[in-house]
Amino acid sequence: MRKKVYAFGEVMMRLEAPNFKKLEQTHTLDFSFSGTGVNVLSALSHYGHHTSLITKLPANRIGNAAAAFIRSLGIGIPSVVYGGNYIGMYILERGFGPRPSKVTYTNRVESSFCQSSLKDYQLESIFEDASLVHFCGISLAVSKRTRDLTLEIARKAKERGIKISFDCNYRPSLWEGYEEARPVYKKMLELCDICFMNEKDALHLLEIPTTETELERQIESLLPIVSKLYKIPTIAGTIRTIISTDKQLLKGFLVKNNEVIFSVSQPLQILDRIGGGDGFASGILHGELNGLSAQDTINFAVASGILAHSTYGDSPISSLQDVLSFLNQQNQDVER
Amino acid sequence: MRKKVYAFGEVMMRLEAPNFKKLEQTHTLDFSFSGTGVNVLSALSHYGHHTSLITKLPANRIGNAAAAFIRSLGIGIPSVVYGGNYIGMYILERGFGPRPSKVTYTNRVESSFCQSSLKDYQLESIFEDASLVHFCGISLAVSKRTRDLTLEIARKAKERGIKISFDCNYRPSLWEGYEEARPVYKKMLELCDICFMNEKDALHLLEIPTTETELERQIESLLPIVSKLYKIPTIAGTIRTIISTDKQLLKGFLVKNNEVIFSVSQPLQILDRIGGGDGFASGILHGELNGLSAQDTINFAVASGILAHSTYGDSPISSLQDVLSFLNQQNQDVER
Amino acid sequence: MRKKVYAFGEVMMRLEAPNFKKLEQTHTLDFSFSGTGVNVLSALSHYGHHTSLITKLPANRIGNAAAAFIRSLGIGIPSVVYGGNYIGMYILERGFGPRPSKVTYTNRVESSFCQSSLKDYQLESIFEDASLVHFCGISLAVSKRTRDLTLEIARKAKERGIKISFDCNYRPSLWEGYEEARPVYKKMLELCDICFMNEKDALHLLEIPTTETELERQIESLLPIVSKLYKIPTIAGTIRTIISTDKQLLKGFLVKNNEVIFSVSQPLQILDRIGGGDGFASGILHGELNGLSAQDTINFAVASGILAHSTYGDSPISSLQDVLSFLNQQNQDVER
Amino acid sequence: MRKKVYAFGEVMMRLEAPNFKKLEQTHTLDFSFSGTGVNVLSALSHYGHHTSLITKLPANRIGNAAAAFIRSLGIGIPSVVYGGNYIGMYILERGFGPRPSKVTYTNRVESSFCQSSLKDYQLESIFEDASLVHFCGISLAVSKRTRDLTLEIARKAKERGIKISFDCNYRPSLWEGYEEARPVYKKMLELCDICFMNEKDALHLLEIPTTETELERQIESLLPIVSKLYKIPTIAGTIRTIISTDKQLLKGFLVKNNEVIFSVSQPLQILDRIGGGDGFASGILHGELNGLSAQDTINFAVASGILAHSTYGDSPISSLQDVLSFLNQQNQDVER
Amino acid sequence: MRKKVYAFGEVMMRLEAPNFKKLEQTHTLDFSFSGTGVNVLSALSHYGHHTSLITKLPANRIGNAAAAFIRSLGIGIPSVVYGGNYIGMYILERGFGPRPSKVTYTNRVESSFCQSSLKDYQLESIFEDASLVHFCGISLAVSKRTRDLTLEIARKAKERGIKISFDCNYRPSLWEGYEEARPVYKKMLELCDICFMNEKDALHLLEIPTTETELERQIESLLPIVSKLYKIPTIAGTIRTIISTDKQLLKGFLVKNNEVIFSVSQPLQILDRIGGGDGFASGILHGELNGLSAQDTINFAVASGILAHSTYGDSPISSLQDVLSFLNQQNQDVER
Amino acid sequence: MRKKVYAFGEVMMRLEAPNFKKLEQTHTLDFSFSGTGVNVLSALSHYGHHTSLITKLPANRIGNAAAAFIRSLGIGIPSVVYGGNYIGMYILERGFGPRPSKVTYTNRVESSFCQSSLKDYQLESIFEDASLVHFCGISLAVSKRTRDLTLEIARKAKERGIKISFDCNYRPSLWEGYEEARPVYKKMLELCDICFMNEKDALHLLEIPTTETELERQIESLLPIVSKLYKIPTIAGTIRTIISTDKQLLKGFLVKNNEVIFSVSQPLQILDRIGGGDGFASGILHGELNGLSAQDTINFAVASGILAHSTYGDSPISSLQDVLSFLNQQNQDVER
Repeated sequence: MRKKVYAFGEVMMRLEAPNFKKLEQTHTLDFSFSGTGVNVLSALSHYGHHTSLITKLPANRIGNAAAAFIRSLGIGIPSVVYGGNYIGMYILERGFGPRPSKVTYTNRVESSFCQSSLKDYQLESIFEDASLVHFCGISLAVSKRTRDLTLEIARKAKERGIKISFDCNYRPSLWEGYEEARPVYKKMLELCDICFMNEKDALHLLEIPTTETELERQIESLLPIVSKLYKIPTIAGTIRTIISTDKQLLKGFLVKNNEVIFSVSQPLQILDRIGGGDGFASGILHGELNGLSAQDTINFAVASGILAHSTYGDSPISSLQDVLSFLNQQNQDVER
Repeated sequence: MRKKVYAFGEVMMRLEAPNFKKLEQTHTLDFSFSGTGVNVLSALSHYGHHTSLITKLPANRIGNAAAAFIRSLGIGIPSVVYGGNYIGMYILERGFGPRPSKVTYTNRVESSFCQSSLKDYQLESIFEDASLVHFCGISLAVSKRTRDLTLEIARKAKERGIKISFDCNYRPSLWEGYEEARPVYKKMLELCDICFMNEKDALHLLEIPTTETELERQIESLLPIVSKLYKIPTIAGTIRTIISTDKQLLKGFLVKNNEVIFSVSQPLQILDRIGGGDGFASGILHGELNGLSAQDTINFAVASGILAHSTYGDSPISSLQDVLSFLNQQNQDVER
Repeated sequence: MRKKVYAFGEVMMRLEAPNFKKLEQTHTLDFSFSGTGVNVLSALSHYGHHTSLITKLPANRIGNAAAAFIRSLGIGIPSVVYGGNYIGMYILERGFGPRPSKVTYTNRVESSFCQSSLKDYQLESIFEDASLVHFCGISLAVSKRTRDLTLEIARKAKERGIKISFDCNYRPSLWEGYEEARPVYKKMLELCDICFMNEKDALHLLEIPTTETELERQIESLLPIVSKLYKIPTIAGTIRTIISTDKQLLKGFLVKNNEVIFSVSQPLQILDRIGGGDGFASGILHGELNGLSAQDTINFAVASGILAHSTYGDSPISSLQDVLSFLNQQNQDVER
Repeated sequence: MRKKVYAFGEVMMRLEAPNFKKLEQTHTLDFSFSGTGVNVLSALSHYGHHTSLITKLPANRIGNAAAAFIRSLGIGIPSVVYGGNYIGMYILERGFGPRPSKVTYTNRVESSFCQSSLKDYQLESIFEDASLVHFCGISLAVSKRTRDLTLEIARKAKERGIKISFDCNYRPSLWEGYEEARPVYKKMLELCDICFMNEKDALHLLEIPTTETELERQIESLLPIVSKLYKIPTIAGTIRTIISTDKQLLKGFLVKNNEVIFSVSQPLQILDRIGGGDGFASGILHGELNGLSAQDTINFAVASGILAHSTYGDSPISSLQDVLSFLNQQNQDVER
Repeated sequence: MRKKVYAFGEVMMRLEAPNFKKLEQTHTLDFSFSGTGVNVLSALSHYGHHTSLITKLPANRIGNAAAAFIRSLGIGIPSVVYGGNYIGMYILERGFGPRPSKVTYTNRVESSFCQSSLKDYQLESIFEDASLVHFCGISLAVSKRTRDLTLEIARKAKERGIKISFDCNYRPSLWEGYEEARPVYKKMLELCDICFMNEKDALHLLEIPTTETELERQIESLLPIVSKLYKIPTIAGTIRTIISTDKQLLKGFLVKNNEVIFSVSQPLQILDRIGGGDGFASGILHGELNGLSAQDTINFAVASGILAHSTYGDSPISSLQDVLSFLNQQNQDVER
Repeated sequence: MRKKVYAFGEVMMRLEAPNFKKLEQTHTLDFSFSGTGVNVLSALSHYGHHTSLITKLPANRIGNAAAAFIRSLGIGIPSVVYGGNYIGMYILERGFGPRPSKVTYTNRVESSFCQSSLKDYQLESIFEDASLVHFCGISLAVSKRTRDLTLEIARKAKERGIKISFDCNYRPSLWEGYEEARPVYKKMLELCDICFMNEKDALHLLEIPTTETELERQIESLLPIVSKLYKIPTIAGTIRTIISTDKQLLKGFLVKNNEVIFSVSQPLQILDRIGGGDGFASGILHGELNGLSAQDTINFAVASGILAHSTYGDSPISSLQDVLSFLNQQNQDVER
């Protein structure tokens, strides 16, 4: 039986004011459905993996529309369950130049997902064909229920020999400081096979000290220690140099076997900032799942991330061929 | 000092799939802000009244946009307060022919309005220039907090000699049956000067019996009794005969001085069903506030209601002149 | 050399609120360019005639866009001249059901057309290949300049043996009563070969009395007299029975050789009311120019008018084949 | 293993001029992907069936987009294959009132589907879990290749004991008269378990004579004979009475066990004419697959067909609950 | 009583071709209402000031829509009067890269505003609660009537002790050279408390000589003289260095107490060029009204101007908090 | 009689996903009609030339819409013929930053144009008023029929003393290598008066050797030889330096009288890449037809090319005045 990649996470409805307008200046909103899990699986589906999302959607018209959208991304939905009434939503006002983008959330805590519990999910059938389950730090933060659920599902999957991937994604606004988050993250990291994190996570969440002051040196000194302490074979992350709201430099790193490999730093032109990080993460997972070399993996992940930032929407939908063409620099003018 | 008409009520964000599409078939939603209070005040502003809304909006970008929209309708917002994070939302999928429209709600209970309490509102400054405050039965239903708040504000306004208008608007889905609603409605009715209700409200909410079986006879037998029992000088309502999803007949009635006056039954062509009832209610309020005769009042209200159904959006925005032209049948072809 | 049909008249920019919205409810307007002359020539071009418009457009970007639009309708523009700065505009808010459509004009009097004079136009080259020039009563009304211009061009064309077509199109709002209009119309009618008018024009503009009270009898008694008095070989017009804003009955009549022929009365479903009359007029002109029988002409004209009302935009763009198919009832379901 | 419903057929790209405009009047087209197979499976998926489409899509961006769209309808795509370069397209100009809709096709014959051959499809894995395969008469007509392919796949499926459903859908424009079509249809009918046809098919395609002149009597006299001659247990179809372009009456019939059952005649309000017939067919298939009684089946099918006509797009997406609510008349006003 | 900021000026309807298209390439236009007065008051309302516009709008649907739009910006309209028929309009075709934006005006001179006279405005009630009235040089230019009106209102306000703010905004195309403008501007400057101007205005309008050749030196040598000569306590302006159509450098200066303070030069990324200057002016007014230090005022004004250029539409709608965040560089990535 | 510029070539329907979206992310496509011939004639019409297109369009609604669009560009269509059923189409997904644009073609070979033959075109009437006929290398490639047709029309025109312009436009994907193309191009070049080519064409198509390695030197060494060998008085082309997908440097060159003149290298900001080259070519043709000096011609052509890249759509529509203003650097801010 062909194995599947699963992700556990919230689906949100994204509503966006068009053409860089502010909410007062428009009578229409563009919308789609996304979330870390959706984004990562969307990319992996487009790279040829068999995927399925573990989440709970409201049993109403919005839930139906979310499911249709997720399916259109190539993601399987047999592991989606339905119930409750609400979905988390956010309204995006796109920034321009020096004006930053703004995200305004609606109530997430009462959503079908945030109110869901272990018994809602059919873990047994999921574990039967899962090769890996991806989790995100936001699920640890958004409610007590989802925190426990995340840890519980990860633990059970780990016991079944399924790989655990985890994106730290520490959001200050969702926690009462590092103190609250620290023990939770530590428990999660102990279960990880692949972890997405950066030097700040090591310093503040895990309280690992370093005497280095330069960013890349900090990464080199801290993350191999994390890898050893928490027995995480693969750690990856990015260094972003912000030039303006729509221009950055992106550099990826990959920690494996006590070594840190960096990609070259590449210019990033941003069409859609949200979900860009998931483009990188899914590139790493693709490399790991397909047994690419560390160098090929980090290169692929950076290319995947760059294309994700230059594509509309949260969820990456570039094809495997698109990433490979980009890596081969085959193209810069029109592809006919 | 010129007196104002106030309304107390929830503001909701309406999101609508365009062109009769279902949610899965579109990537854009049209949106606006509405609510019973907004709708009634919008119409009254267009009829020349000085109005202001009593509500609580979230202190964020959505609250800002709601306030801008409400102001654009001609409604004053000095009595609007800000705080909390959420606004109630609903998604409308417009029906066609035999296919009914569908409304899907997001979480209202956690909204800034539904979580607001008496101390949030600056009632003293409101009572200084209020001639009338309009309330709606939905505020009695949607949460315990708003129920108490509604009754409390109505009571305080009444004590200050301000007229109370109330639209029963009994929504079965928001109550656990008539038993729960009955004592609440009774308290509210005791405070009313103008009440919008129908024969079902008298029969089931107030348990007033009748031997009549025909609709108009029931109205004639029941509502004068309600008027006397609860000391409500003015009661009004409509009789709708549904022909299809976009065609109905509309007949209004007005109970004053122990008499029931009916309008003629008029054909209704429906562009936008939601808020249609508020078009009628604001016509009655206009007549009452301007001292029109009972007959002129009911005619104006029916015309106001008919135009509200044939206008896009929840909130009526026909001008006083539009209603008068319609009443005078001056026009059926293009107005140049 | 192939002869052309010309029309002399104003081009206006039409701006329309979409989806039955009122101006306050939208941030976008659909636009196009039209006018009686444009509409009649558009239809005739689609029926296979060689056409060209006589007008003056502003020498700026709006004039450029108007010319491009007119060309896209198949109308020739060698007889269009450029100069001045403005174009007349109107904003259309589409009505629904009992709510009438509303047209709000911008300043027309200062437009390039309304400020144009005889020397602007290259009449000699126009008269060389003209078979017919069409005029409209609005040009007689909108400014003193265009009034004189209309009469002068018609007179000169007549002298050259070119047929004159004239649509009375009496607009009460543009005249100070029939007294002002009467002598002007009389001068124009004396130049006509084909005239579009109705019984009201005969009664009030021309002060021809009748003892008949029924509409069709009035037409039969009045218009042959007009034909004789003013030596107009062909007079045509329509009788509209208004059922609702989007439903009417349409019946055409044609006066030739002292006889009045009526079409059958046909149901009209209105998608776009404006320009509907020009659809009928161009059908008559098509019949006259192609030497159709009176009966075929009136039938074609009514079909042309019905399709014009059911087509978006002021300017008819149904093909000759579309009209013939409609006349032959070949179709009511999907044409594949 | 849960059985699937398959359909074999072409996927087309539908491009539609918005707001009843003609192609010259717009710069944008709405688009989606559809086809008889897509439509029938879309409805069945929404009624709870497990479905998968058998087709060949171009191996390019349009093929990707088609697959994403089909997945969003809830249809499985493991049986879709990719190759070739083209997809059939059609442009729809929506009619209004007396003006008929027009469909203009692009080249279909060179499409990936019409150029596909038996070896392209993985029939073995399809036959493993198929309960039924649906075919359409258009596949018999559109090219020699698809004609042979249709018959061959049906034959092989039949041999494996899989049910064959077939919609005659005789399109005069795709055949050189009945003579060409007759032998092909006869071969196909011999393989059918469920067939959609009407009295014309029996009379002209199958040359079965009748002395009846009235429509329902013809159906009663002809179709039981077809059922017996070709050993087709279930035959169904509709009778349409055209009132106007957007209003019809719809009556369904079902032939089983030598009996003909009619539904009541129901009014149809048409939002989107195309794909309406597939709404009926999928209702019959749902009834057959779920073992409903003949009466329940025909009622469900008519309801399914009515909702399909009142829903945007070719492919029906009403839920099972929507159809049941409609059958129970639970609703005509807004569903909240 | 809380004091208000007033502005006197024309309201125009802005019509814009979407997506960088030229007028021939689109069938829709985005629209809004703006004007110097509207823009300045919009910004001030968003910064927490109580504002009201002094203008005359047409008494028709366009006037209604303009009023609704202005209210939605948070601007009061009790000082707006209605009458006449027209509003000035302009069509914007947005430039791209080396292609400049183009503005085409419709007739402004016949507009309700340009035809208005002193008796139209209720100055007494305005002067009762005005702290400041803002004027713009365009009102001096656009017609003889508005020129006299501007001077007259400014003079009367000055007599009442109300502060006068004036933006020179010299538009060459609206004057027959500096000779015509000079005496008018001189009269206006004598009434000013706050004036927006640059070195060109001093040199050419006021004919003050300088030996300096470098821009900043000219400002330092000229504007303190203007301040002294015309007794204007506060003079402010900007220096723009154009890099490309969407990139400039912006530097502000403020002349107070015989001193000239410059801001640092900041990069400007332009989403919407029109109204950008009003963003700066309203920042200065905010500083002056709130008693900020000269340095804080000029910094705030530049930030306000930069955000105005990066926001859609003529009228700035950034909040006070947005400007402060920008000043504090708190943000460059997404604000959640 | 005024002479016309003709172009022979395919018209294609361009369908574009809006707002940088990929096909899966949108339900609407923007569309227009274009082609090398259309583009070159559009520019020339806007520069004041009399133009007409030689092509064959399908005799259906798409053909009608294409003709209307072409007319709106100012291009004459008396030399367009109708017949067949199809038009070539392409779908454009606009790239962003590092993500390249993608073009997906539908079937062109079966189009009305690609299936047309000599007898379809009325060459005699074309040759009567033609001053020049423009051809494109794509017509040589797309089908055997159009290859022969191109050469045949060019030969006949040449015989009549009409100038032949030819854009090499070698597209690798349309040929089986240079071997197939070489003899065809050689035949065509022998007929040319004006030819658009670059050093690669000389090297690979014509197999002219050079020892130069630097681009400009190659041009200087190769193209005068081509000019002499093939007796082509005028050869022109561009050198593009790609910086990113939306930024390039553009330098033009012109070979006349054995001399090569280069323009300065100018920055290019790309709004719409497709058709940009035709903007340059039409600038050269304008210079040649109007007898400009070589230097003025190349400068005009580069300006024309730069504006074409910064304008929406394939077909350049900048006016002569726009190009001249750009050349005079009169403007970089808003043109009012």
